[in-house]
Amino acid sequence: MKQNSDFKISNLGKATIKSPIILSNVHGDNIVNYVSDDEFILQNITISEREHISKDDILEKAGPREKIFFDPTKVNAGIITCGGLCPGLNDVIRSIVMTLWYRYNVKRIFGIRYGFKGLLPEFNLPVINITTDMVSDIHQQGGTILGSSRGSGDRVDEILDSIERMNLNILFVIGGDGSQRGARDIANEAIKRGLKLSVVGVPKTIDNDLNMIQKTFGFETAVSEAVKAVAAAHVEAKAAQNGIGMVKVMGRDAGFIAAYTALAQNDVNYVLIPEVPFHLDGYNGLYTHLEQRLKNRNHAVILVAEGAGQNLLKRNNNTDASGNKKLGDIGTYLQDAITSHFKSKQIETTLKYIDPSYMIRSAPANPNDSLFCERLGSNAVHAAMSGKTNMLISCINDVLVHLPIEQAVKQKKRIDPESPLWRDVLEATGQPVVMTNASVVE
Amino acid sequence: MKQNSDFKISNLGKATIKSPIILSNVHGDNIVNYVSDDEFILQNITISEREHISKDDILEKAGPREKIFFDPTKVNAGIITCGGLCPGLNDVIRSIVMTLWYRYNVKRIFGIRYGFKGLLPEFNLPVINITTDMVSDIHQQGGTILGSSRGSGDRVDEILDSIERMNLNILFVIGGDGSQRGARDIANEAIKRGLKLSVVGVPKTIDNDLNMIQKTFGFETAVSEAVKAVAAAHVEAKAAQNGIGMVKVMGRDAGFIAAYTALAQNDVNYVLIPEVPFHLDGYNGLYTHLEQRLKNRNHAVILVAEGAGQNLLKRNNNTDASGNKKLGDIGTYLQDAITSHFKSKQIETTLKYIDPSYMIRSAPANPNDSLFCERLGSNAVHAAMSGKTNMLISCINDVLVHLPIEQAVKQKKRIDPESPLWRDVLEATGQPVVMTNASVVE
Amino acid sequence: MKQNSDFKISNLGKATIKSPIILSNVHGDNIVNYVSDDEFILQNITISEREHISKDDILEKAGPREKIFFDPTKVNAGIITCGGLCPGLNDVIRSIVMTLWYRYNVKRIFGIRYGFKGLLPEFNLPVINITTDMVSDIHQQGGTILGSSRGSGDRVDEILDSIERMNLNILFVIGGDGSQRGARDIANEAIKRGLKLSVVGVPKTIDNDLNMIQKTFGFETAVSEAVKAVAAAHVEAKAAQNGIGMVKVMGRDAGFIAAYTALAQNDVNYVLIPEVPFHLDGYNGLYTHLEQRLKNRNHAVILVAEGAGQNLLKRNNNTDASGNKKLGDIGTYLQDAITSHFKSKQIETTLKYIDPSYMIRSAPANPNDSLFCERLGSNAVHAAMSGKTNMLISCINDVLVHLPIEQAVKQKKRIDPESPLWRDVLEATGQPVVMTNASVVE
Amino acid sequence: MKQNSDFKISNLGKATIKSPIILSNVHGDNIVNYVSDDEFILQNITISEREHISKDDILEKAGPREKIFFDPTKVNAGIITCGGLCPGLNDVIRSIVMTLWYRYNVKRIFGIRYGFKGLLPEFNLPVINITTDMVSDIHQQGGTILGSSRGSGDRVDEILDSIERMNLNILFVIGGDGSQRGARDIANEAIKRGLKLSVVGVPKTIDNDLNMIQKTFGFETAVSEAVKAVAAAHVEAKAAQNGIGMVKVMGRDAGFIAAYTALAQNDVNYVLIPEVPFHLDGYNGLYTHLEQRLKNRNHAVILVAEGAGQNLLKRNNNTDASGNKKLGDIGTYLQDAITSHFKSKQIETTLKYIDPSYMIRSAPANPNDSLFCERLGSNAVHAAMSGKTNMLISCINDVLVHLPIEQAVKQKKRIDPESPLWRDVLEATGQPVVMTNASVVE
Repeated sequence: MKQNSDFKISNLGKATIKSPIILSNVHGDNIVNYVSDDEFILQNITISEREHISKDDILEKAGPREKIFFDPTKVNAGIITCGGLCPGLNDVIRSIVMTLWYRYNVKRIFGIRYGFKGLLPEFNLPVINITTDMVSDIHQQGGTILGSSRGSGDRVDEILDSIERMNLNILFVIGGDGSQRGARDIANEAIKRGLKLSVVGVPKTIDNDLNMIQKTFGFETAVSEAVKAVAAAHVEAKAAQNGIGMVKVMGRDAGFIAAYTALAQNDVNYVLIPEVPFHLDGYNGLYTHLEQRLKNRNHAVILVAEGAGQNLLKRNNNTDASGNKKLGDIGTYLQDAITSHFKSKQIETTLKYIDPSYMIRSAPANPNDSLFCERLGSNAVHAAMSGKTNMLISCINDVLVHLPIEQAVKQKKRIDPESPLWRDVLEATGQPVVMTNASVVE
Repeated sequence: MKQNSDFKISNLGKATIKSPIILSNVHGDNIVNYVSDDEFILQNITISEREHISKDDILEKAGPREKIFFDPTKVNAGIITCGGLCPGLNDVIRSIVMTLWYRYNVKRIFGIRYGFKGLLPEFNLPVINITTDMVSDIHQQGGTILGSSRGSGDRVDEILDSIERMNLNILFVIGGDGSQRGARDIANEAIKRGLKLSVVGVPKTIDNDLNMIQKTFGFETAVSEAVKAVAAAHVEAKAAQNGIGMVKVMGRDAGFIAAYTALAQNDVNYVLIPEVPFHLDGYNGLYTHLEQRLKNRNHAVILVAEGAGQNLLKRNNNTDASGNKKLGDIGTYLQDAITSHFKSKQIETTLKYIDPSYMIRSAPANPNDSLFCERLGSNAVHAAMSGKTNMLISCINDVLVHLPIEQAVKQKKRIDPESPLWRDVLEATGQPVVMTNASVVE
Repeated sequence: MKQNSDFKISNLGKATIKSPIILSNVHGDNIVNYVSDDEFILQNITISEREHISKDDILEKAGPREKIFFDPTKVNAGIITCGGLCPGLNDVIRSIVMTLWYRYNVKRIFGIRYGFKGLLPEFNLPVINITTDMVSDIHQQGGTILGSSRGSGDRVDEILDSIERMNLNILFVIGGDGSQRGARDIANEAIKRGLKLSVVGVPKTIDNDLNMIQKTFGFETAVSEAVKAVAAAHVEAKAAQNGIGMVKVMGRDAGFIAAYTALAQNDVNYVLIPEVPFHLDGYNGLYTHLEQRLKNRNHAVILVAEGAGQNLLKRNNNTDASGNKKLGDIGTYLQDAITSHFKSKQIETTLKYIDPSYMIRSAPANPNDSLFCERLGSNAVHAAMSGKTNMLISCINDVLVHLPIEQAVKQKKRIDPESPLWRDVLEATGQPVVMTNASVVE
Repeated sequence: MKQNSDFKISNLGKATIKSPIILSNVHGDNIVNYVSDDEFILQNITISEREHISKDDILEKAGPREKIFFDPTKVNAGIITCGGLCPGLNDVIRSIVMTLWYRYNVKRIFGIRYGFKGLLPEFNLPVINITTDMVSDIHQQGGTILGSSRGSGDRVDEILDSIERMNLNILFVIGGDGSQRGARDIANEAIKRGLKLSVVGVPKTIDNDLNMIQKTFGFETAVSEAVKAVAAAHVEAKAAQNGIGMVKVMGRDAGFIAAYTALAQNDVNYVLIPEVPFHLDGYNGLYTHLEQRLKNRNHAVILVAEGAGQNLLKRNNNTDASGNKKLGDIGTYLQDAITSHFKSKQIETTLKYIDPSYMIRSAPANPNDSLFCERLGSNAVHAAMSGKTNMLISCINDVLVHLPIEQAVKQKKRIDPESPLWRDVLEATGQPVVMTNASVVE
């Protein structure tokens, strides 16, 4: 079986140590088996007359190996959480710690505080010695017990200096594409320095927009929380004459939260996402459709992803030179624009705007996300202990696999406007297939 | 037993019709009894050496009377919901309808749409004929099936013209102090016109600030929802270095939601309410305490009622002549002020601000509010059927009583800074008893 | 002001020590005040022509005193939780610890394990040294971190020996009527032994059946959880032809949970409680009404308190001499009896029975119970520090007061079938006022 | 592309009618596309050196076709829900109705009551004419508005007679393997009779045990609800000395709910499922491990699937001839057995047993299940309108596909004890890989 080199996982060396986890190598004895490095799944599974499936786009399955690379008694493991909050961070931390401690008997586990800052001497942030007691109940809390921050992942040399001082041989990086780029660079630089450092990422993006990865932890919980905001907007909209409820959700480059929320809570009439441009004015613009809807049904609910309609803001930006941060906010922009529009047409409307952002980000993981995090964390440990590096634990085609970091960060995953997902959203909302006035959208 | 005339309930006339509800008049037969008009509770129940309890501040008990005023077969009842949303509106509507229909056999029940507007011809809003089918499940939804709006309660003559055209003899007004003033004026004007119109109010204020009334429906649910926002702010605050979480809740004149929320969710460090002034600057101002807290504990949570700190905004208003609407928002004002303050002191902080307003207002009632609404609604019907008017169903000293509207609207209920409630809040938060720099606060 | 001696609170002696809590003694300075021992509320507040209010049934207000009895530096405080689980136990523990620690600077706080057993040497259960860290998040968990057990409260001498060995001067007993009787006996025996031991109880009964006490913590949460079971039973009932959903809730002697649950979730058709007897057979028995309901509406929901219908079980017991425990279960008894009855009448029914018991008891307190527990706990500490003993912190007429234990345990509080509460339940369910075949119920 | 005939979908005939849904046929124009019948996914996607992927085990993609078989103006569609309740039934009904009505303009939609009984004349159950108003809010309620019942799917001739009388050309069967066998037989018999009847199933099994199907709707919600029961059991277990909490969940043949629940709520110590035998007695039986756990940790939580340990019950059955139904209940069996065991060893334990069954089954779908149901329902309609029959809408490899009913019902899906899922459960609970005393389990 030939594997495309793009999907090859880097190894620190040959794994020669017997794993302390006792499993079976025999299929059919009803005892759980080790996973070997030659077990794969196909990456692209759709086929039609017009194309042929690539037999070498295969992904390595995650799981405990029979032979591991690191001697558990000598492992110093670090865990870091980066970027904005996302439901499930504590679950992943907990799972990593529990698996290291109880499965591999690794007891020197260090929590690095406030993201990559915690590895930069200037911030003077002492690491936490993590024990199982410390993490046993943390999955019931949102946020991250380690703290988090954005940025600093590019200061690779200083970070590696710290890693060497701390004598870490495993680093778990729970973070988004920016942080994983940092993780990739750290992994590469470690190899250059001759360090035996396993860098294993657990991808974290509340927007669910990492390339190739089917779903990231916390996304489902985020949708559950967004649903509550939409339900509130719907109640408010219905309670007023010409009531408009509007909710802004996360989604800088990809509208997955918005799309899934609209499918889960069918009270949404218009979903606006970054991938699908729309006009406000004109015969086929949002205003026209909204006015018609208010005439027919007396209320409407709009769900907008934060990255939607940036062309509107840019245009506005051009006329007003002092482009301040507020103008970049599509939520308040639409709130003002829609209110003004109907006022100018002397149609009395009541617009209630909800921005649930932090209430979504800080939520504890729901049960399905909890179990997903549990599995991500334990499989991240298996990968690290077997000497894999520069890779992510990912869910692809509903299987947990190893993915080179490079594959996940080389571009963003977006909603394909021609995909079944967007089709189902259009069906659920009943919104027009396009809301632009011409075939070419600027 | 002499009753203070301030607490006397107006009657449309002598109730002479046998109630269709069959209860007992015998105490001790284990069968539920009618309530008579000479059953009271004391209003002021606290006593000490220094004062004597007033024996005539007594309140009439709510409940079904043996004799009623209206012939059920001839009743046309209207229901109206006014003002901002509040959890439990649908529960009260449902309970009124169910009691009219099943207990009194009254089947001409009219829902008036969008508050008092629904009684003004210019808006041309047809009433809804309400049936039990229509309301049987509405308590599971937030909002109000009738719709609501603010204002118009002062157009008494036009409203009474509509009431006469509709031939209403009972009007249930579910609304806050403004709407209840309207209800009072409608009741008085009806008497002047010689109409036999019973106007019975169910007090609605999410702020829980109606005079004398122990608690209003929806308040408890509002606190439950506010707790979620505070929990989110706490998670965000802890996840950042010098993280500050801030939540704004309802409370224009009274900080009850803020106070109860802080007691329910002990993660709040500073509660700012309209009744207790505070300074930002100075040795005893918020900044000083906040900085100290960040130094000691690295994070802080602030809970601010929307009416708090208006002196700050006013002062700001004076220096900046173009007082725009945004300046009136203490939440965004504090967000900017605190951020600027720490920036100017070169202390890096991360402030996350949550304004959960509509998510609180639109929530469905929790079980305890549901059962409270159930009881308010059915007792409002008993009062109306027995010919009471110009009164509210209220919970005082944990008993449902009849209260003249005038008593509830003549002033706002506020948190007494010397009360056990505020004392317990100070104990729960650990915040300073005062956060002003001098004994006299401007 | 003369106080009825039944309501006099015992004091260990004159409180002479200045409280470390700094409050005001001046009314009108906008600063929170101390509470003095001559501030009371009336106990009985209902009045009518036929009776006169007793001016000496007055209850001492709870709150911090200016002078306290114990020197905080010398206090050893113990906390004990007894009996079945109830939502809010951890909240009360937390509040007691926080108030002792931060308000009074008392830092020797001992958690006694598994109820009174923890004070009996034979069980060899070491006490826990409680710190604020240990309790800061426990209110988010149901249950009790101390553990609990039933019984052993009558072994007063051994318990007092342990208390002397531990040198406790304050004992907080969080428990029901059995445990509070133990607390009373311990307090009395301590006085006989000449010990300066303050015994302060926080009444705990999920059934809300303690004499005179308006409501106990956890009750409201219990109702919220019971509502979920009733909702489930309703869904199941509606999904089947002649579907019957039945839920059993706590309530050995008093049907408060059942009554409040039925008011909160109006899908209940029959509420069966210990205070109101009912027949199964006969023209006015449950079977007749149930059959009629199934004929008309095709489904029904029954809510039964565990102590209801004991006459049925006893009778059954008589015919079957070997009365085993299962016969005492009204839930399974009714399940079998109803199923057999309709089978014998060849009416096909589907009965789904839900017993949510432990899911109710183990729930964490909801926000309103949390804040109630917060206030109970801190006021229990104020009482103990000021040298009160043999008393409970109670909520009566919506005010927190001191109540002699004796008053609360001398009889059970029950639902008066002639009360407004039961009247409102009958109205909400539409069930017959009586379901017996004759005026005299055996 | 050659498709294995086992996975070929039956068609009623050539689809020649232009779909009223306007989509694109052009890839790359950013407009949602029709799905053609030659778009597939691979069924088996795992590969290794030792095996080769089968290129003809391919599954037809679901979605709207450009040409449909039925003329929408002539369609009479029936919907039926069968078997036990499962979260999401109403969501699926709602989605089918909305898609038929708004997308295809089909307005004769009939709800068949109480499962297949509704198609048998002897039960005399009138069908419901379903409108969109009727279903717009039903997804917020658990259960099924159509009612359900078990069985009767084998009375194919009578059912088809009814279908002919009703002139149905589409029948949606929402049900489990028994009901889908019925659906298969109806589809086949219809073809024999020369009827143009499309039978499209939506697989429903709360146990998630249908062959080949990745997940069925409601399963995730079921896990979420089971988690609550486990949390309660854990709280109760911890509150007692040697406390044992035990929860029984659904899972007759497959332990998926138990396994996922244990992964989601890490407080479970022993998961007992039908697929993995266990002993109670002996050096490696449950008692031994449980006793050790109580000694070390003082409490334990057991989660048992209803189909687990049937060998224990059978053996018991043999010795006691009067095998009544109760003996088949592994929950109460274990409750008694464990209690007796420890009593006999004079170890005091407290076992609290929770059977949340109907509270799980009757729950409304959580957001992720809601959106899944939304998609299942609309794609079921697309399949039916294009003339597919004898098939199910299924989620396989995270893609919605058409699956011949035969494939789903020919055997049960079970947990492979050698699978990553079971491995992760063992890691999460820390329970022994096997709990039998010998390699061969009777």
